[in-house]
Amino acid sequence: MIFVLRPGHSQEELDHILELITDSGLTPHVSRGEERTIIGAIGDERILQSLPIESFPGIEKVVPILKPYKLVSTDFKKEKSVVDIGGVPIGGEKVQVVAGPCAVEGMDMLSDIARQVKGMGAMLLRGGAYKPRTSPYAFQGLGEEGLKILAAVRDETGLPVVTELMNIRYAELVNKYADAIQVGARNMQNFDLLKEIGKMRKPVILKRGMSATIKEFLMSAEYIASEGNSDIILCERGIRTFETETRNTLDINAVPVLNSLTHLPVVVDPSHATGYWNLVTPVALAAVAAGADGLLVEVHTNPEKAVSDGGQSLKPSKFYDLMERVKLVAEAVGRHA
Amino acid sequence: MIFVLRPGHSQEELDHILELITDSGLTPHVSRGEERTIIGAIGDERILQSLPIESFPGIEKVVPILKPYKLVSTDFKKEKSVVDIGGVPIGGEKVQVVAGPCAVEGMDMLSDIARQVKGMGAMLLRGGAYKPRTSPYAFQGLGEEGLKILAAVRDETGLPVVTELMNIRYAELVNKYADAIQVGARNMQNFDLLKEIGKMRKPVILKRGMSATIKEFLMSAEYIASEGNSDIILCERGIRTFETETRNTLDINAVPVLNSLTHLPVVVDPSHATGYWNLVTPVALAAVAAGADGLLVEVHTNPEKAVSDGGQSLKPSKFYDLMERVKLVAEAVGRHA
Amino acid sequence: MIFVLRPGHSQEELDHILELITDSGLTPHVSRGEERTIIGAIGDERILQSLPIESFPGIEKVVPILKPYKLVSTDFKKEKSVVDIGGVPIGGEKVQVVAGPCAVEGMDMLSDIARQVKGMGAMLLRGGAYKPRTSPYAFQGLGEEGLKILAAVRDETGLPVVTELMNIRYAELVNKYADAIQVGARNMQNFDLLKEIGKMRKPVILKRGMSATIKEFLMSAEYIASEGNSDIILCERGIRTFETETRNTLDINAVPVLNSLTHLPVVVDPSHATGYWNLVTPVALAAVAAGADGLLVEVHTNPEKAVSDGGQSLKPSKFYDLMERVKLVAEAVGRHA
Amino acid sequence: MIFVLRPGHSQEELDHILELITDSGLTPHVSRGEERTIIGAIGDERILQSLPIESFPGIEKVVPILKPYKLVSTDFKKEKSVVDIGGVPIGGEKVQVVAGPCAVEGMDMLSDIARQVKGMGAMLLRGGAYKPRTSPYAFQGLGEEGLKILAAVRDETGLPVVTELMNIRYAELVNKYADAIQVGARNMQNFDLLKEIGKMRKPVILKRGMSATIKEFLMSAEYIASEGNSDIILCERGIRTFETETRNTLDINAVPVLNSLTHLPVVVDPSHATGYWNLVTPVALAAVAAGADGLLVEVHTNPEKAVSDGGQSLKPSKFYDLMERVKLVAEAVGRHA
Repeated sequence: MIFVLRPGHSQEELDHILELITDSGLTPHVSRGEERTIIGAIGDERILQSLPIESFPGIEKVVPILKPYKLVSTDFKKEKSVVDIGGVPIGGEKVQVVAGPCAVEGMDMLSDIARQVKGMGAMLLRGGAYKPRTSPYAFQGLGEEGLKILAAVRDETGLPVVTELMNIRYAELVNKYADAIQVGARNMQNFDLLKEIGKMRKPVILKRGMSATIKEFLMSAEYIASEGNSDIILCERGIRTFETETRNTLDINAVPVLNSLTHLPVVVDPSHATGYWNLVTPVALAAVAAGADGLLVEVHTNPEKAVSDGGQSLKPSKFYDLMERVKLVAEAVGRHA
Repeated sequence: MIFVLRPGHSQEELDHILELITDSGLTPHVSRGEERTIIGAIGDERILQSLPIESFPGIEKVVPILKPYKLVSTDFKKEKSVVDIGGVPIGGEKVQVVAGPCAVEGMDMLSDIARQVKGMGAMLLRGGAYKPRTSPYAFQGLGEEGLKILAAVRDETGLPVVTELMNIRYAELVNKYADAIQVGARNMQNFDLLKEIGKMRKPVILKRGMSATIKEFLMSAEYIASEGNSDIILCERGIRTFETETRNTLDINAVPVLNSLTHLPVVVDPSHATGYWNLVTPVALAAVAAGADGLLVEVHTNPEKAVSDGGQSLKPSKFYDLMERVKLVAEAVGRHA
Repeated sequence: MIFVLRPGHSQEELDHILELITDSGLTPHVSRGEERTIIGAIGDERILQSLPIESFPGIEKVVPILKPYKLVSTDFKKEKSVVDIGGVPIGGEKVQVVAGPCAVEGMDMLSDIARQVKGMGAMLLRGGAYKPRTSPYAFQGLGEEGLKILAAVRDETGLPVVTELMNIRYAELVNKYADAIQVGARNMQNFDLLKEIGKMRKPVILKRGMSATIKEFLMSAEYIASEGNSDIILCERGIRTFETETRNTLDINAVPVLNSLTHLPVVVDPSHATGYWNLVTPVALAAVAAGADGLLVEVHTNPEKAVSDGGQSLKPSKFYDLMERVKLVAEAVGRHA
Repeated sequence: MIFVLRPGHSQEELDHILELITDSGLTPHVSRGEERTIIGAIGDERILQSLPIESFPGIEKVVPILKPYKLVSTDFKKEKSVVDIGGVPIGGEKVQVVAGPCAVEGMDMLSDIARQVKGMGAMLLRGGAYKPRTSPYAFQGLGEEGLKILAAVRDETGLPVVTELMNIRYAELVNKYADAIQVGARNMQNFDLLKEIGKMRKPVILKRGMSATIKEFLMSAEYIASEGNSDIILCERGIRTFETETRNTLDINAVPVLNSLTHLPVVVDPSHATGYWNLVTPVALAAVAAGADGLLVEVHTNPEKAVSDGGQSLKPSKFYDLMERVKLVAEAVGRHA
């Protein structure tokens, strides 16, 4: 950690900082430049990162050198991790596609969608039993009934199922039925939820918060990993910007950035990232070209009647087209789908 | 609700939309312009707001006319609401100041701070027993022990206490000890938590999410109100922008905007909104000048040793200065503090 | 245009708005709902778009129906435009790559780079003679000398050249030497410059401003088109967001959005969009997969010695790799490069 | 400047960086930690700030220690600067108000507004002769005719006039008529324009760009100062964020931040910062409370007929109210207005 002192700081202020560094078990090193004095603290600075050092008298700026996350970083583990969801490996050579409706609406509908997307190449089924809705007056999900339907359709089709856990109370329930647990964007910093999931032995798809930096995203993954669960898949699903033509702005840069900073697999959700079904396919292809390990795609047999997010759901015929094109792009970048 | 049709839409597409409107119990009205055909749907359009109408064939754009929130809006109730926290009215003529440390660290420390801030004019005490921390390796709060300390200091000083509830599991506990419950920025869209709090009979301070629009902020308040709890205080605490000189960007415009859209009281947290103690006072004064009904200010007797957010905490002497100046500005805008 | 009236508006306020609509040559149409009265104005509303109607007494909201741009929209022209730069068509089946250094530094260097990138498949040469630099103390470009070098290298290699025009004073000069003029992100709303370029008969590459919405981007293109120059190529080069791991955030969604809203060709600059050379290739591939008609890529034989933007420049060997991979992805999406 | 090396860097890479530092006339200092090696470069690092050091092999991160701006910083000059516009000091004890219409529309109108705002306490008159308009079809200003009207009204009323310069071509003209030159938000990084203005001997009001960081804002001021003109007033006028209820988001934090980083006076434009006349007064009061040295307020006798920005213009009666309240708040913070 580097401490930059204000011009005109006192000797007492300097001594005070040296003391803090020594007391924390690190070794201070002072350099006096013409315009600024700086102090380097040599050792494991993470102990200092949660202290309010910027408020110390005489301090102008504090610069951390080490990354605040550890277990999820490529410093800790160089080789790419592969996370297995019910026998389907995420992070390997194959670009895996998770498809399904935004919300589970009933057995027939889910079974129908599942059979269709499986026939087109999807390897995992998604569907929400508990839905985070902006409006209290909107459909909130079928709850446990939805989970049972998911499990039944998994048994029928063989597709492992992914579903969102929003609330610690349902942790056990969701754990019982799902093959992988999704943490939604709005819960990326619901730290109690992250810790709970960290204690499970179940793969997690962690979605990036709407205003989360990549560093915060990795810190949330670190929360899960620090509790012992390292089967984490990161999902870029669009961030909030000033642009209003789309629901969110897909941060495509984040795909190669994450691939360099972490060993965890990275998938992309083009449905939420755009908000409009006609933008889903081009953006899905972009994600694969940029190096994503998988896609989460909303598919609905009758988007007009979807109880949630119909506007961004693909009909099966459009999903078929997406899959055909994803296969071509995956091969162009040395993978397959 | 207004539906704008794409140029070249078919008669079938038009009929389909008319049918949807009629089926929803609204009355359609078609206007054909030279470049676009538009359809107005007359009646309570809220029934349509959760449908994926933008994905209907032939639709270019859908424009809602009514606001998606109701109970919290000035349409529903014109006069400003006053929310009482343990005998202290928020939203009246007096600008109320809630002060205290970021986290409860111990009885002596909290009691000391409470007595000092009370002497300087603070009317409520804040302090976290459960802390949402970006890093899993940082101090996470004293938990129930912290709640007990808060209650004891309340009994000692007479200051009602405000503390954050992060997790439904602790709802009962927090409800038992606190005079008002705070919902943190990261939980503004933790809808299950909002519903739970909506069922309580306890005032709530709802903080705006870092990337929440004012509309979404009001929708979260609507969640609480729709469950029966209308003792809601809105807290602007800074939003996330591209600027990095400060921790967040205080959206000062939000104060008069909220005052026009909702009858709920509006307070401002200048500590989180800036992240640096030396910016807290000018920004607090700005909030009062803009019409805020109160302030949440972090105060610590020894910010350097604070276990959380020390960098943005005021020492009591600086808080004294803030209070003196807040009083002057409050009077300048026809209130008092 | 739709006018939503405040609840409780007066008859006089309503009449006043009706008068405005009639006076503007449009036909008003009033619908009274239970909660709001709305007025539709039928006719070419563009005449109303620059009036401050939202400030009229009694008005709650004004909703435009028509897009504010016309000539550049797909309403005006359905088929995709192809813009020819010195014999190289942009917007056709082939994905065209513009490559070269950020700034022209000298004849040998530019000639060397030009010959190398041409051999690897680049069809156009880029290089700045006038450089917009954040710091007044940084290299500002070679000026006319740089333009002459560009022209000489064009003559030597046959690659048409693209260079930035920052200042109306140099319009004639840049027009004389360049095959296409680039408008930088910082000048996207330098309206006098746009008008000047609109009067030229020279293709333009218009870069999106860092905080420009897609609508504003198209309005700037409309400025150029409205003066008679419709040889416009739009360039997405990253927008400003809260993320700091990269220099900008490439708005990949903008590629298919622009392809649906405008007939103009769309290219992407992965160098500025990321700011780091190691992110350029994955993001370039993403752009092609999403439907971009071309790429602008910074290439430098010795990035360490580059006078500007060396950090995001590819060495020729890396550019070779990019081109090979771009060709594969272009084919995967039914084009070639 | 601090260089952080990647784990596993080679000795050759280290030597290469040491060489660069030595060649630049600075002194390197190496510290080897357990997880990272860092190098400090002691001396005037500004010479290194424009080099692409982050792209050097072996480099993980580069951290500048010194600020990139110098002349405008409080390091360079500690006491607050006072800028005189035609005899009116900005930056002194008095909070100065610049008022007038967005655009000059004619002699009678401007004269009428000027006399009214002067009577209410405004000390300077604003009005645009050249208008940057998003749409090419909107009113673009009266040009030289507008400048003449401004000068005539200045002569009539004694109010010094401020007007925008958008285009280098009109620099001489604007310089001739105006008492202070305004640089609009869209031109904050029009570097040629800044240099031109830097050569004048005329006060400048520099508006912050919509997506400019405070650092970039100060770098633009440095451009002007580095050419010899240090009569610069900084104007915060709102930045672009995701919020759509207001036209921009006033960054109120920027007022105290600028007051700590620079000696230049800081004013606020509440009209553009909000976009709605009913928000102007509360936000203006906030600006004064936060420490602004002045305000720029749009006033129009008939906002409905304003050719530009009528929606955010105050009628004289509302401006009178604003002035009365500004006076009270200014006194509350130890100033007057």
